[in-house]
Amino acid sequence: MELLLPHPSNSSPLTVLGYLERAASVYGDSPSLLHATTVRTWSETHSRCLRIASTLASSSLGINRGQVVSVIGPNVPSVYELQFAVPMSGAILNNINPRLDANALSVLLRHSETKLVFVDHHSSSLVLEAVSFLPKNEKPRLVLLQDDVDMTPLSSDVEFLDTYEGVMERGDKSFKWVRPSSEWNPMVLNYTSGTTSSPKGVVLSHRAVFMSTINSLLDWSMPNRPVYLWTLPMFHANGWSYTWATAAVGATNICLRRVDAKTIYESIDKHHVTHMCAAPMVLNMLTNYPARKQLKQPVRVMTAGAPPPETVISSAESLGFDVGHGYGLTETGCLNVSCAWKPEWDGLGESERAKLKSRQGIRTAVFAEVDVRDTLTGESVKHDGVTVGEIVFRGGSVMLGYYKDPEGTAASMREDGWFYTGDMGVMHPDGYLEVKDRSKDVIICGGENISSKEVETVLYTNPVVKEAAVVAKPDKMWGETPCAFVSLKCLDGSVSEREIREFCKTKLPKYMVPRNVVFQEELPKTSTGKIQKFVLRQMAKSLP
Amino acid sequence: MELLLPHPSNSSPLTVLGYLERAASVYGDSPSLLHATTVRTWSETHSRCLRIASTLASSSLGINRGQVVSVIGPNVPSVYELQFAVPMSGAILNNINPRLDANALSVLLRHSETKLVFVDHHSSSLVLEAVSFLPKNEKPRLVLLQDDVDMTPLSSDVEFLDTYEGVMERGDKSFKWVRPSSEWNPMVLNYTSGTTSSPKGVVLSHRAVFMSTINSLLDWSMPNRPVYLWTLPMFHANGWSYTWATAAVGATNICLRRVDAKTIYESIDKHHVTHMCAAPMVLNMLTNYPARKQLKQPVRVMTAGAPPPETVISSAESLGFDVGHGYGLTETGCLNVSCAWKPEWDGLGESERAKLKSRQGIRTAVFAEVDVRDTLTGESVKHDGVTVGEIVFRGGSVMLGYYKDPEGTAASMREDGWFYTGDMGVMHPDGYLEVKDRSKDVIICGGENISSKEVETVLYTNPVVKEAAVVAKPDKMWGETPCAFVSLKCLDGSVSEREIREFCKTKLPKYMVPRNVVFQEELPKTSTGKIQKFVLRQMAKSLP
Repeated sequence: MELLLPHPSNSSPLTVLGYLERAASVYGDSPSLLHATTVRTWSETHSRCLRIASTLASSSLGINRGQVVSVIGPNVPSVYELQFAVPMSGAILNNINPRLDANALSVLLRHSETKLVFVDHHSSSLVLEAVSFLPKNEKPRLVLLQDDVDMTPLSSDVEFLDTYEGVMERGDKSFKWVRPSSEWNPMVLNYTSGTTSSPKGVVLSHRAVFMSTINSLLDWSMPNRPVYLWTLPMFHANGWSYTWATAAVGATNICLRRVDAKTIYESIDKHHVTHMCAAPMVLNMLTNYPARKQLKQPVRVMTAGAPPPETVISSAESLGFDVGHGYGLTETGCLNVSCAWKPEWDGLGESERAKLKSRQGIRTAVFAEVDVRDTLTGESVKHDGVTVGEIVFRGGSVMLGYYKDPEGTAASMREDGWFYTGDMGVMHPDGYLEVKDRSKDVIICGGENISSKEVETVLYTNPVVKEAAVVAKPDKMWGETPCAFVSLKCLDGSVSEREIREFCKTKLPKYMVPRNVVFQEELPKTSTGKIQKFVLRQMAKSLP
Repeated sequence: MELLLPHPSNSSPLTVLGYLERAASVYGDSPSLLHATTVRTWSETHSRCLRIASTLASSSLGINRGQVVSVIGPNVPSVYELQFAVPMSGAILNNINPRLDANALSVLLRHSETKLVFVDHHSSSLVLEAVSFLPKNEKPRLVLLQDDVDMTPLSSDVEFLDTYEGVMERGDKSFKWVRPSSEWNPMVLNYTSGTTSSPKGVVLSHRAVFMSTINSLLDWSMPNRPVYLWTLPMFHANGWSYTWATAAVGATNICLRRVDAKTIYESIDKHHVTHMCAAPMVLNMLTNYPARKQLKQPVRVMTAGAPPPETVISSAESLGFDVGHGYGLTETGCLNVSCAWKPEWDGLGESERAKLKSRQGIRTAVFAEVDVRDTLTGESVKHDGVTVGEIVFRGGSVMLGYYKDPEGTAASMREDGWFYTGDMGVMHPDGYLEVKDRSKDVIICGGENISSKEVETVLYTNPVVKEAAVVAKPDKMWGETPCAFVSLKCLDGSVSEREIREFCKTKLPKYMVPRNVVFQEELPKTSTGKIQKFVLRQMAKSLP
């Protein structure tokens, strides 16, 4: 047996890039992308990606294999196409959040050594400002994306090397796309938006992206030709890999430049949407939308990021959304844990069901291993649903490491063979994981660990509360005390700090009740919709 | 970027064996296996497999890691369990067809160096006879499978080391199953039943089996908790990997000791079957069953092997079977090509649709590449739907090679990086593959190549024909001529050889019309239901 070794016929590097040519064969005349008045088919998308890739691979744009090409834009067709076109040319794809400021953007462009940037026209002044901060020999070339028919010419057009359609026109649709020489070759670079000020460059291999995509398809049992609505940003972990997964099943991708409740409800209705991913805040927005109404057909929603409060899940379900959720990190490519529903839970009461549904769940079928371990010793903690430890992962979609950060890489990808997430959780006896907190979000009050999530979950059960976040406030006596920031559904200020605290007292042990409750019209969020706890921590510190 | 290398946290060897512990967590109380009066849950199946694996891994049965353990039995629960339990112990699984004769069986036991055989009680005398042919130091130990409650004790029980339940009882359900040290480690050995007399031992790695399973799940968009009926033998390419795939989605596996139309229809009704795989002969049997009736709910059927005649597909669909089909080999682990249906074909006429549906289809989403090449030069043939060449594959589910057969391995896994299937086909301009023939089934008549399949397809359109097979008959003048073997739906002999030939003349070029038509009550088949063309070729040779 030991004479039987891998051979080129059985060891083709795993990659998602071949999905596109298959989609062109199987779903050639079916719609691939809809945006405003744009309608594209899979056959067109295939040709367009090959043409862009061929121009990138030629020397005309000054890009070499293995160099980084960045994309800055919202969920529009060209940004979708670039998810394929950039790696098909042999370059590495880096999607950047267009809501960063020019300074942060210039840091990323420099760190990634980006040679070329595709820029949505709404981001052009931002990008020009960011590029102005860079030394002359580090300035990338710029190509303007043109996804809107009503786009007016920009005065700054002169700064652009070319337009997207120009690059396309010079391309060759019979281009032989560049297969990776190894499945371990880097394919994408994703800077984590994170909630801290030090972004890190996550590098994913072709193999990791392949595994993420398979994972996303299988966990949803995604059927052929679904209608997929893009509310989750493509720049956020490549939309958890649905950028590529939708090509594998010939989906119709509904693009959205703006994400608001009205547009989402209209799109669902108009296009008969079957599937969408959404940040919990988007789900919250949909359930709080005054003109919300019952959906005509069920829409499967996958959510992740912060654990969704039980009340948000149940309101969304009552409108006709079939809410799945899971947990994963940019570093691990996709949702590696998902809350697989057990049929025997159907018979339980509503609150019991919501409680089970708010656990992050169990590792997905193709992900190897998930555990909760003591951060210091690396020993597995008891799987009793109570003992808190650090969540650790092992599996095919885990990153290669952080770009240019060997210390950061070694700190998370440890010698014991696990990736340490930095998130705290418990493992229930049935194998289901529950995230308790980002490790830095745990509040240590008089020696007791308080899970900020646990307090937030209680706050969300109060019918007047729209959003809630709990952080540590430094305290001379107790070390830290819990401090709640709350926004309300109505702005008439009919509820007092004392009433909120009284409400918490009925549902929480006394030490967990927030000592301070601060009302805000809206909580500060990152551009991907996560509440910015580090901002709130600063505010808490300055409270009397 | 080149500093980022694989790390244990992102390079866990791909394997399907972890599906079982996940199924025990997610689907613990749901049925896993139903057989006669046996009902098992996923949690029980998990424990039972761990117990069998732990006894195998201990020294008590004399098995070491990497040695071959064989299984001889039909589709019963223990045979299902052994698909997991044997590789979980670190041994290599070899399923053997129980319809082989003792001589052939002894050849396989010897070639595989089998140390232990699990034997269904119906096969015990066969196995004892086969073992009696082996030299004393090569005789494997035997364990008796006991899946039937009404099993009477056998006089030969004394020859068995133990019973399956005995091995189980000595096992430890908290056993840590043996993860492969590399995903390239061999996991299964499958002897191709083939239609020739020289079986070959196909070795599949953990990685190949993982890819096959993913492929089978995705190509069917298999939902969670389907009800899967076992008509396809588990000993036949591990039931195209549905043995493992059903664990990934928590299916209810309906086992069947006997495959006949009555039992299949009864099982579908009783268990609300949603999915099944079936050889074309089984589909044929179901559509010709006199007491057939409309299904109460649609059943998805996947078929492969010989290309199903258009008439069989359309009859099955009219009964409520939703027929998918594809093409693959034991060597390539699963169906690597499947006839993905295009929505725009819905509007075509019935015969046009049937014609499209009888093409084998397009490579599945996760399989890398399929092509048709000139056998001698290795050049890709024109993708025009006409030019015949050898079908070649490249992808993750392709075998490691043939066991103890470096020449056979090198002949099929060539230096140009492709696996040569030995089957002939054409590639249509839309990227769909059509199998024309096994290379040895092509009939060369007066220099013209005749596809035996093309003639058979015409014969199947004749309403009196039940089964048809066309082979070459040696001819002094023409080299070879086509000779048809036909069985009829009614046995009253109301059709003559001349009438069949006249019928063919209306639908085929003259040179393709069978010169001889031989009527048979039933055509000779392999134990997996393939028509034995080599037997027919012998018969054709001896015709006047």
